[in-house]
Amino acid sequence: MTNRPTPPPGEFLYLLAGDADEFVATCADLLPADIAESLNDLPPDGAARVLTALPFHLAVQVLDESMLERRDEVIERLPDAVAAPLVQALSADQQVRLFRLIKEGDRARLLHVLDAGTREQLARLLSYPPQSAGGLMTTEYLGIPSSWTALDVRQHIARVGRAKETVYAVYIIDEATQRLARVTSLREVIIADSGTPVMEIGEGRKPVSVRPLTDREEVARLIARYNLLAIPVLDDDGRVLGIVTVDDVIDALISEQTEDVQKFGGMAAVEEPYLDAGFWQLVYKRAGWLCVLFLGEMLTATAMGYFEHEISRAVVLALFIPLIISSGGNSGSQATSLVIRAMAVREVSLADWWRVAVREIPTGLTLGLILGVIGLARVELWQALGWYNYGPHHLLVGITVAASLVGVVLFGSFAGSMLPFLLRRIGFDPASASAPFVATLVDVTGLIIYFTVAYLVLRGTLL
Amino acid sequence: MTNRPTPPPGEFLYLLAGDADEFVATCADLLPADIAESLNDLPPDGAARVLTALPFHLAVQVLDESMLERRDEVIERLPDAVAAPLVQALSADQQVRLFRLIKEGDRARLLHVLDAGTREQLARLLSYPPQSAGGLMTTEYLGIPSSWTALDVRQHIARVGRAKETVYAVYIIDEATQRLARVTSLREVIIADSGTPVMEIGEGRKPVSVRPLTDREEVARLIARYNLLAIPVLDDDGRVLGIVTVDDVIDALISEQTEDVQKFGGMAAVEEPYLDAGFWQLVYKRAGWLCVLFLGEMLTATAMGYFEHEISRAVVLALFIPLIISSGGNSGSQATSLVIRAMAVREVSLADWWRVAVREIPTGLTLGLILGVIGLARVELWQALGWYNYGPHHLLVGITVAASLVGVVLFGSFAGSMLPFLLRRIGFDPASASAPFVATLVDVTGLIIYFTVAYLVLRGTLL
Repeated sequence: MTNRPTPPPGEFLYLLAGDADEFVATCADLLPADIAESLNDLPPDGAARVLTALPFHLAVQVLDESMLERRDEVIERLPDAVAAPLVQALSADQQVRLFRLIKEGDRARLLHVLDAGTREQLARLLSYPPQSAGGLMTTEYLGIPSSWTALDVRQHIARVGRAKETVYAVYIIDEATQRLARVTSLREVIIADSGTPVMEIGEGRKPVSVRPLTDREEVARLIARYNLLAIPVLDDDGRVLGIVTVDDVIDALISEQTEDVQKFGGMAAVEEPYLDAGFWQLVYKRAGWLCVLFLGEMLTATAMGYFEHEISRAVVLALFIPLIISSGGNSGSQATSLVIRAMAVREVSLADWWRVAVREIPTGLTLGLILGVIGLARVELWQALGWYNYGPHHLLVGITVAASLVGVVLFGSFAGSMLPFLLRRIGFDPASASAPFVATLVDVTGLIIYFTVAYLVLRGTLL
Repeated sequence: MTNRPTPPPGEFLYLLAGDADEFVATCADLLPADIAESLNDLPPDGAARVLTALPFHLAVQVLDESMLERRDEVIERLPDAVAAPLVQALSADQQVRLFRLIKEGDRARLLHVLDAGTREQLARLLSYPPQSAGGLMTTEYLGIPSSWTALDVRQHIARVGRAKETVYAVYIIDEATQRLARVTSLREVIIADSGTPVMEIGEGRKPVSVRPLTDREEVARLIARYNLLAIPVLDDDGRVLGIVTVDDVIDALISEQTEDVQKFGGMAAVEEPYLDAGFWQLVYKRAGWLCVLFLGEMLTATAMGYFEHEISRAVVLALFIPLIISSGGNSGSQATSLVIRAMAVREVSLADWWRVAVREIPTGLTLGLILGVIGLARVELWQALGWYNYGPHHLLVGITVAASLVGVVLFGSFAGSMLPFLLRRIGFDPASASAPFVATLVDVTGLIIYFTVAYLVLRGTLL
């Protein structure tokens, strides 16, 4: 039941070449999202032909799908007579999405064919940043004068309901001030007696709302927290500018998630699907961070330079370098991922840094002790079994490894947990504290800890 | 507007100790989610007292909030006479959530006070895995006999609407077979003429549905893709077992996101908020993976053992070990995060592994060449400026570093991108391919590549 048969893209054009009625009949049984996905696999010319052949209401629905890619290229290939009514019929938020993509020249051409009201509204919506509430919102909400009754609302919805993005959230507007007075739901309107004034329907709590510049992550958080189907966007005076609906928020959540995972992997966010992203784009997005990390990691070569003398005297020390520094990086990346996530879901705020520090220090110490014991056992076991000869001072070598692990894991957990706070404090996204970033930070310090411990433990024997 | 004043938890008990009317008036203006959050900060006894003092309908709403923590402990502290009607009034999905938490003994006590119908339903819902559609679904959906008209539906909602989880998705049930015949929306029902038979309302496409064992990630994907407010869960015969609503899916998406970020940081998922999780739980969740990674990383010490002779002859080689192996780990973690994400959003399936491989090989080669050039420049620059003396064969050392970087970054990108495929192929979650996991995997190989290249380039000179 789950998997619906989406015709392979070739078939679309084949159907189109054949019987037009059959084409329309096939499409009528498909969901707009599935048609949009098929169009994504066609060249823009083919997609434009399919879109032209579809019944108008279905073409609008397909173009309204947020999963439709390259919508700008498809629209640019349509004649004005086809494009204008389609674009005009789109919901305001999808018009904005489209115009953000369209090239300057075509923008003017398309704006020209739109009516004055749409044009004006579009210009206003385009002025908000794309990841803000203003940039996501649509203006097709259900605004109801505060003097109406439940019956008035029901009759109004029956008349204009199809044109609204959602009719399930009902926004009641004070007639004198034009401010948002109350929010209720269509459910409450239907349950209420016909004559009930709208101002008495449902629970009279102060509505949850956002401002146009509120970030999409905050919008998503509020919609999730209060189980809303839409959230109103208010201006300074409390007037409704538009609404952001739950489906846009889900799309935003998924994009945000992709961005976070990629950032945590240590790279710039790639917006296109992986297999669609160009080769040079992929290299470009990855090379930047990779080079930054590489330059940072060069400090390890510098640090090691200072210890070259120690290494030449006790080559056995070199054997444990990767083991020790990687343990610091691993514990650091655990701590970072915990804190980034706790920040994202608002469990932890900037002011909580010391509460986190107070937890991470004993945790890091305990984890370090666990690894230290295993490390010491490794050295002694290999020595006892004759698998490797760490020399006459093998016990001291084992102690050096164990003590260094305690220090390195403790430092890794601490630094990894504090880095997101530091980044946020200086105005960066805490999610930029990627696992590779933490590892690089901890590597240099790890080397210094290791060779300092070695110097203290092995002075007079190996060193 | 965004930030609503939530009274601090102490104030709740203070209000309760004082004027009961004032307490109720204060609470009436708060949203259930905000009350739930305040209760989270109270000890379970206090939370139970507040819950008892709240008006019944508000107490039910608060208990229905998915953000309410320790709901089991709160319920256990309520007398049967208070607990029974509250639990009975909860929506089915929240009842299930509650009973999953409640201890065996209390379960029997509470089940006993519930009515037979609720008890039976609960037992059935509890039998589904918690992260499946069956485990998330609620049974309070709007099922409409196929012979009804639009007016019948509207009148029915006015009567029973309050008891349904959502009334916005209307499920039309074939009277003969009891199968799901059609899905329409309340919007369409309101727009339709009163006499229109429900089977003629809206667009007659085959409904999108899931099975009880469908994973919550797939449920979320379908709801997002088709912009649904709810999705029906059907049995083998096409009968509706329940529905999963969009707000549950958002909660699931956020949990899934937390799990993924923590996994990618190289640890078991922690379900409690970071600051609430116990010390030993945190150590336990982290120590497991940390030890596994540590044991894996021990192979580096073994590998280095084989090269001890080379290091003692050319200590200069040791200086670049951290730099080279970390570059492999970093490029690997980039590739892994890209592929994990592409898999999660279904851009890439198991069968696409070779398309990914074909992209990653040239990408890795290019990235390796970029780092290689920087690495060579570093060695020659430091030598020329007199910042460090790499000896008479400094150019050969530089070439060794550069060539190793090409090999290591190429291998890292390739291995990092293939690992999620391998994990999925053998039945693991591809998201288990954490950044530290990839780094560990690449470290050992990186050392082997480095010393092999060194042997080839430096044979006869340094080695």
